[in-house]
Amino acid sequence: MKLSIIRSACGSHRIHPVSSGSRVSGLSRRCLPVGPANSRLILRTASASSGGGTSPKIAVNFVRKSQSDDGFEFDSSLREVVESTKEAMVSLQRKNPTVQPLLAIIQAGEDDSLLEINKKMAGKIGLNVTQICLGKDCSSDEIVEEVLKLNEDPRVHAVYLHLPPAQLTSRVLNTLKPEKDVEGITDLNVGRVVRGDLSKGFVPPLGSAVLDLLEKHDTPLDGKTVLLVGEEEPLGVMLQCLIGRSGMVALKSHWSSESLQRQVMQADAVVLFGAGNMDIPPSWIRPGAAVICYNANVMPSKSGLEYLTAAYRTQNVVRGCSRWLQDQQYQPWCLRTLKLQPLTPVPSDIEISRAQTPKLVTQLAEEIGLLPEELEAYGRSKAKVGLSLLDRLHTQPDGKYVIVAGITPTPLGEGKSTVTIGLVQALSAHLKLNSFACLRQPSQGPTFGVKGGAAGGGYAQVIPMEEFNLHLTGDIHAITAANNLLAAAIDARMLHEATQSDKALFNRLVPLVNGVRRFSPIQISRLNRLGINKTDPASLTPEEVSTFVRLDLDPSKITWQRVVDTNDRFLRKITVGQASTEKGQIRQTGFDIAVASEIMAILALADSLKDMKNRLARMVVGTSRSGQPVTAEDLGVSGALAVLMKDAIKPTLMQTLEGTPVFVHAGPFANIAHGNSSVLADKLALKLVGRDGFVVTEAGFGADIGMEKFFNIKCHASGLRPNVVVLVATVRALKMHGGGPSVSAGSPLPREYIDENLSLVTDGCRSNLRKQIKIAHLFGVPVVVALNVFKTDTQAEIDLVCRIAKECGASDAVPCQHWAQGGRGSIELAQAVNKAASKPSNFQFLYNIEMPIVEKIRTIAQKVYGADDIKLSPEAQTKIDYYNQQGYGSLPICMAKTHLSLSHMPDKKGVPTGFVLPIRDVRASIGAGFIYPLVGTMSTMPGLPTRPCFYDIDLNPATGEISGLF
Amino acid sequence: MKLSIIRSACGSHRIHPVSSGSRVSGLSRRCLPVGPANSRLILRTASASSGGGTSPKIAVNFVRKSQSDDGFEFDSSLREVVESTKEAMVSLQRKNPTVQPLLAIIQAGEDDSLLEINKKMAGKIGLNVTQICLGKDCSSDEIVEEVLKLNEDPRVHAVYLHLPPAQLTSRVLNTLKPEKDVEGITDLNVGRVVRGDLSKGFVPPLGSAVLDLLEKHDTPLDGKTVLLVGEEEPLGVMLQCLIGRSGMVALKSHWSSESLQRQVMQADAVVLFGAGNMDIPPSWIRPGAAVICYNANVMPSKSGLEYLTAAYRTQNVVRGCSRWLQDQQYQPWCLRTLKLQPLTPVPSDIEISRAQTPKLVTQLAEEIGLLPEELEAYGRSKAKVGLSLLDRLHTQPDGKYVIVAGITPTPLGEGKSTVTIGLVQALSAHLKLNSFACLRQPSQGPTFGVKGGAAGGGYAQVIPMEEFNLHLTGDIHAITAANNLLAAAIDARMLHEATQSDKALFNRLVPLVNGVRRFSPIQISRLNRLGINKTDPASLTPEEVSTFVRLDLDPSKITWQRVVDTNDRFLRKITVGQASTEKGQIRQTGFDIAVASEIMAILALADSLKDMKNRLARMVVGTSRSGQPVTAEDLGVSGALAVLMKDAIKPTLMQTLEGTPVFVHAGPFANIAHGNSSVLADKLALKLVGRDGFVVTEAGFGADIGMEKFFNIKCHASGLRPNVVVLVATVRALKMHGGGPSVSAGSPLPREYIDENLSLVTDGCRSNLRKQIKIAHLFGVPVVVALNVFKTDTQAEIDLVCRIAKECGASDAVPCQHWAQGGRGSIELAQAVNKAASKPSNFQFLYNIEMPIVEKIRTIAQKVYGADDIKLSPEAQTKIDYYNQQGYGSLPICMAKTHLSLSHMPDKKGVPTGFVLPIRDVRASIGAGFIYPLVGTMSTMPGLPTRPCFYDIDLNPATGEISGLF
Repeated sequence: MKLSIIRSACGSHRIHPVSSGSRVSGLSRRCLPVGPANSRLILRTASASSGGGTSPKIAVNFVRKSQSDDGFEFDSSLREVVESTKEAMVSLQRKNPTVQPLLAIIQAGEDDSLLEINKKMAGKIGLNVTQICLGKDCSSDEIVEEVLKLNEDPRVHAVYLHLPPAQLTSRVLNTLKPEKDVEGITDLNVGRVVRGDLSKGFVPPLGSAVLDLLEKHDTPLDGKTVLLVGEEEPLGVMLQCLIGRSGMVALKSHWSSESLQRQVMQADAVVLFGAGNMDIPPSWIRPGAAVICYNANVMPSKSGLEYLTAAYRTQNVVRGCSRWLQDQQYQPWCLRTLKLQPLTPVPSDIEISRAQTPKLVTQLAEEIGLLPEELEAYGRSKAKVGLSLLDRLHTQPDGKYVIVAGITPTPLGEGKSTVTIGLVQALSAHLKLNSFACLRQPSQGPTFGVKGGAAGGGYAQVIPMEEFNLHLTGDIHAITAANNLLAAAIDARMLHEATQSDKALFNRLVPLVNGVRRFSPIQISRLNRLGINKTDPASLTPEEVSTFVRLDLDPSKITWQRVVDTNDRFLRKITVGQASTEKGQIRQTGFDIAVASEIMAILALADSLKDMKNRLARMVVGTSRSGQPVTAEDLGVSGALAVLMKDAIKPTLMQTLEGTPVFVHAGPFANIAHGNSSVLADKLALKLVGRDGFVVTEAGFGADIGMEKFFNIKCHASGLRPNVVVLVATVRALKMHGGGPSVSAGSPLPREYIDENLSLVTDGCRSNLRKQIKIAHLFGVPVVVALNVFKTDTQAEIDLVCRIAKECGASDAVPCQHWAQGGRGSIELAQAVNKAASKPSNFQFLYNIEMPIVEKIRTIAQKVYGADDIKLSPEAQTKIDYYNQQGYGSLPICMAKTHLSLSHMPDKKGVPTGFVLPIRDVRASIGAGFIYPLVGTMSTMPGLPTRPCFYDIDLNPATGEISGLF
Repeated sequence: MKLSIIRSACGSHRIHPVSSGSRVSGLSRRCLPVGPANSRLILRTASASSGGGTSPKIAVNFVRKSQSDDGFEFDSSLREVVESTKEAMVSLQRKNPTVQPLLAIIQAGEDDSLLEINKKMAGKIGLNVTQICLGKDCSSDEIVEEVLKLNEDPRVHAVYLHLPPAQLTSRVLNTLKPEKDVEGITDLNVGRVVRGDLSKGFVPPLGSAVLDLLEKHDTPLDGKTVLLVGEEEPLGVMLQCLIGRSGMVALKSHWSSESLQRQVMQADAVVLFGAGNMDIPPSWIRPGAAVICYNANVMPSKSGLEYLTAAYRTQNVVRGCSRWLQDQQYQPWCLRTLKLQPLTPVPSDIEISRAQTPKLVTQLAEEIGLLPEELEAYGRSKAKVGLSLLDRLHTQPDGKYVIVAGITPTPLGEGKSTVTIGLVQALSAHLKLNSFACLRQPSQGPTFGVKGGAAGGGYAQVIPMEEFNLHLTGDIHAITAANNLLAAAIDARMLHEATQSDKALFNRLVPLVNGVRRFSPIQISRLNRLGINKTDPASLTPEEVSTFVRLDLDPSKITWQRVVDTNDRFLRKITVGQASTEKGQIRQTGFDIAVASEIMAILALADSLKDMKNRLARMVVGTSRSGQPVTAEDLGVSGALAVLMKDAIKPTLMQTLEGTPVFVHAGPFANIAHGNSSVLADKLALKLVGRDGFVVTEAGFGADIGMEKFFNIKCHASGLRPNVVVLVATVRALKMHGGGPSVSAGSPLPREYIDENLSLVTDGCRSNLRKQIKIAHLFGVPVVVALNVFKTDTQAEIDLVCRIAKECGASDAVPCQHWAQGGRGSIELAQAVNKAASKPSNFQFLYNIEMPIVEKIRTIAQKVYGADDIKLSPEAQTKIDYYNQQGYGSLPICMAKTHLSLSHMPDKKGVPTGFVLPIRDVRASIGAGFIYPLVGTMSTMPGLPTRPCFYDIDLNPATGEISGLF
């Protein structure tokens, strides 16, 4: 008669000899006479952990071959599990020092002896445990509520529902997130164990413990029969699967089975569940057979099995936490691409877009490694992505950064957006390289005006194109709201200052609330800027009160305009304040299109919520009569502006026609602002694509404008460094630069552009294309020329462009046919970009940011545009002096120049020389952080033609389908 | 030696006698000598369905007790399954005549013998089958793509992945939606079967077939041992569970087991899987034991088991389809409410909102019976709900319809919104009655101006309140965009008409495209309205061209204003067109706050996408010089407006602090428009709550305005009939009406309002409260008075109000304390409303819509306001004549009157009498569909005070938390 005791990991052990004839503890139903003395039945230990020490002890009820010694050491299992889990824990915390795995236990009633075991075991591992004790008769609702909280709590990695079977309803069980279900009892996890897929689920800790003991039994049980008695589903079935998969034969029976005796007698090992109420005669046990007892009804039993189970539970917790961390790490994408079957002739953009079924944005997000909590879906095909991603992946290396620029375009545009989209379709869907396109959000004005949408075109589009072109996720609306709140605040403040005494203003600005006046934080900021270091409103002198309450804005020097996202030419110049309620405070002002708002430029350049808020506060809206700049913060409105922009700062995820990811975010004007999509979208995308991936973004206008600003403004703000420039050219634009007749929207193309003309092409290549390549090389970045092929281009023309482009220093030059073929048509371009990206990029800025404003302007004019010099108007010179005086001298320069020529003269094609660039005026976007010289007149509000696009735009009310968008 | 054949349901049967000594067909591994002649082993039929007929035959390999007859009839199982499934199908189609259950089979390779069996069986049931044959070596990607398509296809109710195990990867399996997995092989469904929860999963058809045969075996197998040999997971385990649950003992073994012979010999029934490559000697089979063979590797075997399996498959398909239909039917909610633990003193609104964790909106949607495809989440706590819901639930009876109105308020407001929210919190979370609140979306102007937000307050709020008060889902932004596109179109058109000849206009409006001129549909509409029934542009006479191209708008008679959602007082009156590009076409106009746009009123009154589009087209923007109304459709922009509004028409789902559902939709002004939330939100909500549920909506201002318009305008448009009016009163407002001193925002309350004053309360009740109750009774609807209790109210005051209210005819009058206590504080009100709703409501309109405009105005003035008569200004009279002439005479009336008095004089409290209501002017919103007489001057653009709310609004950039909103 032997007792098997596994010594605890801490060393001490206790032995519980059992006399022959005693019954298996707790088994009462079948109280049969006890068998012979050699039946080798061993009882469960009554209290393995008595003594109050911290040393759990494991007693496993094994029937051993006859041996005379006490104290078999069965603690090896426990020791091994604890040790390996400890190691896993150490390794996990080495890599993630801030993470502390946490097991939450939900139980009904306040018995905490279970907690004791789990706490002890967790303590050994270094794991945290939290216990939620509900009432003994708690309702399903209460349990579900707790489970939901734990589901959503990122600090909790594992949940153990220690509840009686009656409370483990389907609803409760399946509320629990499977990834936190360390007991493996949710339906999904049960299915996984049964099907043998353990990459995601969990083996129930009790199952692991039983299996461990069976496998370590000193008579190998391989091929032998293990009888499981009395376990309820699903654990019984899972155990059976696990045992079967370990090479044993698992049979199940139940306490009421008539064949129980025969089954027990034939078994090589017997596992008894719920033995608390049952009894089994030792005589049934076959000599040498192993017996394991587990009493789920009397929890916690003090049997060692509970300790081993608890140890395996900690193992599952650490495993779950590791998986959770793993899920948060970058992993190569498993992208399901959408098939394209391009038609000839190419249908309309909206027809192509509608013919493709986009993936659910939640699915796309999962494919590219976003966590559910990082995503805010806006309908089924758009989602905002949270900036917390940057923290999660901050150790992840960035991907390659590609900027798509163009040669000087015709007024018809040369297809940079379609090249950008075609390129990522080729990279992702055909070369299987992770890649992201980062695009600007288009204004709704042109969508309903002349230009149409901006989602790409043909078989290189972002879909659904109508979602892209319409409200999207409301960012431009948020900008409009913020811009106009600031505008309203300016005029209202001028009115109130004009009509109230200092005292009245002060009493209203710092009102008595419950008898006390207090400055708000934003007012204390202003006091500090004014050099008034006081916090008690009563302590201000009358002069200080006056300085504080009066912004004293000079109405003729308000630079802040209102905006609408509509082509509304009649708002270009207006007079406001003409109602009698405004008491004669009329002034002339105007509206810009919303994307021309400085807030749009800020959105594009901010690199965090904090940065955006600071930039919003710094925006200068005008000048006081004494010549001081007045900011949004002075008006007390900057916090509200940040609130209005809090969602807009998150980039919007969409997809291309081939199901590859796209960020759409920000779309500042390319003349009075920098014309590039957001820094944040690029940063998020670079982390998501990972080291070997690509982020392709587009710069507005020709390379002389958009690309120059991309480098000197955007890269300056972001700190990111580009790897490749893709320079888009078309035979059409090259012919124009080579001397072809002028091209204009709405007029038929002259024959030169339809028939082959190698001479015009050659001249165009050797002038504008060569110059634009050189401009890119000024910044030390390799150039790939992408010839956007039109159906009228001949092979000879195509070959010619590619040959000359390479002669002019391009790393490569390839034709691309994405418009007609999708990504397949851009494979050659993708390969060329991939190759160029492996070359070293020696990126450098064009100018030192500390150079005087005039010198920076001159550098751009001479080196980029090829001007002989610049000529400042007196107004421009005055402004520059003022900006220098205000300390704005070391901001980068954002040239507002026509995109239709390298010079300031739109009709000078090719490479104009011998000109002096006139600087008519200079302005500043202090929040966005640049000085913008005006070269000629810039319209910041487009108009509507006689027959705007909207004439063809319609909605089918039966199907909800849109027609007429392009 | 017997052969058991189940005769097919069609009657014919074939017998395959097998000579002693033959082996179990297809079993080859263990080729042992054949046992004695009485071993009673019966072979599988080689081809039960040969003969090319349409009659499948079932042969099941049962070992029967010795019998001498051939042809046991084993087709009863098949017949039963087919019959019961047919019945289920008939019943399903009787209830849903348009639904046709469809099974999709995905298979690798083009073998369609499987399809044949399934088609035959499906044909018997009346089920459709579709087969997707992929290449033999199709990739995981290809399979996943097909599965995803089938997942999303609402016509497909069931998917059978008939693929070799190697292609049934975890990824493939778990891509399939569990509700379409009629084979029950996804992990989730496996777990369900194992755990014995079959309410949602599916028993694998093969499992059902095997179980059926075992259960019908003529030697009852209850308590007997069934040996399963060779089945792979997860089917083997599922079978074992099923068999076990049927009272048999299921053992599993595998072909390579050393104990196979012993196990087979001991078994009462043997089920052999994958027998195609295996062999078993008949001698092992115990006399009388049943044998079932299934060869999954040689599909389709012609064994009858495949037919029975196919029959059970159809059963699962019909079951799946029934469940799908069931899910689409209304079901009582299982709403998980959020617990409130109100604090004293009550914290700020934003603090209360932030302290509660809202349910995920997807979860809330599921709880109230929305289907995933009806929901478009906007982040985690807001979602738009699709209008298709109305079709799905059109047979569902509506719930009870409750309108919350108020007595004439003080300028501080009396808390109708909080009463509305508190009431639904009480109904849903405490009385457990399905209920919905339908609220207006607030303008952002007041949020940043004076009033603050509108999400309720205290413990009766919509959460997250910052989401409610800010951009929400962009509806107001969409309205702004649509309103201003129309405005831009008006001015641009006037400019183009002023600067171009008829011919130039015509050539631009109807341009040559590829050499052809064509009218667009919207232009043909205009031609029809002009009485020009031509479709060929070339056929128009010069006069017709002129009529067509010239809207000839009279600049002094443009009624369309621009809008912004900002309190921008300086835009109240402006002059536009002052830039030189507008060539001197200046004119005076103005901006309204966005919610004052007619498009907002249209959104609130439209009952479908089509209705909205038609109303947008009908909007009159001004008058031509010849006196004709000019509409949005005349400008060619109505399709584009509908496109801009396509998402705004879907109501937004949010939740209260207690997790009960709320629709937020539309928020038209309550003076120049009707001040009620949308018809569509109410209609959706009434279907969702179901017969015994409640929809509570709020009418702006006092009952004399908001409620009157609710009845005469909103109910007129919607056809809905209200059941109960809740009339909100406060002791404060009653004291005011009883003669208390005046109350104004920003000034401290006089003592009368803080101390008990029963006399003022009595007088207030007997005047304004009594009158407002009477007004509600004019419409035949029962009234419950809700006294919104403030902490200064004494019990005597409260009791007094309730007593007098009942004396004045209220069905009930109860105090409510939702602000301090949440739904618990409104339980009494909820009970009173529930009781009142069971009373008959004899709803009637106040006036016949066909009455002359003047008579309708007079009726309202006299019956509702208590005026002696009305007095029209000459301008008003002229307008009325004009509207009559234009055919607008039978529109309802929307009075634009102060809400601070029953009369037009804001300082006349109580029940003013002896006054004549002056009608200063009359205007029309033809798209929205009402005439609005102006009684006094209405401001449609609020201003900003010296210290607007925005001073305190801030964003913490580290946490993203907002402060200062209220």
